[in-house]
Amino acid sequence: MVPARCSLVTLGVDDVARSKAFYRSLGWQTGVDMDDFAVLRTSGPLIALYPLTDMSRDTGDEVPTARERRVHLAINLGSPTEVDDAVTEFMAAGAALLRAPGAAEWGGYTSIVADPDGHAWEIAHNPGWPLDADGLPQLP
Amino acid sequence: MVPARCSLVTLGVDDVARSKAFYRSLGWQTGVDMDDFAVLRTSGPLIALYPLTDMSRDTGDEVPTARERRVHLAINLGSPTEVDDAVTEFMAAGAALLRAPGAAEWGGYTSIVADPDGHAWEIAHNPGWPLDADGLPQLP
Repeated sequence: MVPARCSLVTLGVDDVARSKAFYRSLGWQTGVDMDDFAVLRTSGPLIALYPLTDMSRDTGDEVPTARERRVHLAINLGSPTEVDDAVTEFMAAGAALLRAPGAAEWGGYTSIVADPDGHAWEIAHNPGWPLDADGLPQLP
Repeated sequence: MVPARCSLVTLGVDDVARSKAFYRSLGWQTGVDMDDFAVLRTSGPLIALYPLTDMSRDTGDEVPTARERRVHLAINLGSPTEVDDAVTEFMAAGAALLRAPGAAEWGGYTSIVADPDGHAWEIAHNPGWPLDADGLPQLP
């Protein structure tokens, strides 16, 4: 069983600074604030702002053009083993493997699978983002 | 100020029945289960499965082809007035208006705006989905 969880929604953007300015002008707060990556706190899932070029690289896709904006969903789990198990469940359900489970450059462990319509789900363990009782990641 | 909230993530799908079968085989539960619309319960946002053709109609876009799968995010609010106010804030922040605020065929009140990269945010009041203390919609 894969936890019924959507931890993070990632918006592929052209300009992280522009996107941060947009969401901040709505009154939203950043929990992570880097030049090329930011995470907004919400009362639901975390919302990440991430360059579309990097996002496309992660899944091995070509960089989408304007009408093909991409969003990734994520399930954060407690360990690399839990990631492996969830990916196995996704594959058994008929998912496509876009990125095999393995160490991530940001220090965790991650994989990306796609549902029948190609929607990308990242299945990740991030040791820097502990999970709360609902399994949702808590930003530092 | 717009509440920092992502209530619902909608996946545009080709075949709602196929998508329901996929997510159910992961062990996930549906809170709404119709032939052409379903909502999955998660510990984060609700995940809706909705025909891509309907989704494209809602925003006035052409139906995307395979590489252009679309996801919509939603902020659910407590009244039509709150929807109007949030749309005003989004527009002041530089959002594009994809669907003007108005009555929705499903009995609520809704609007769709787009952030600088074209990501669609539906701003909605659904009287059938009361909000909890965190502002997240509770399915019947």
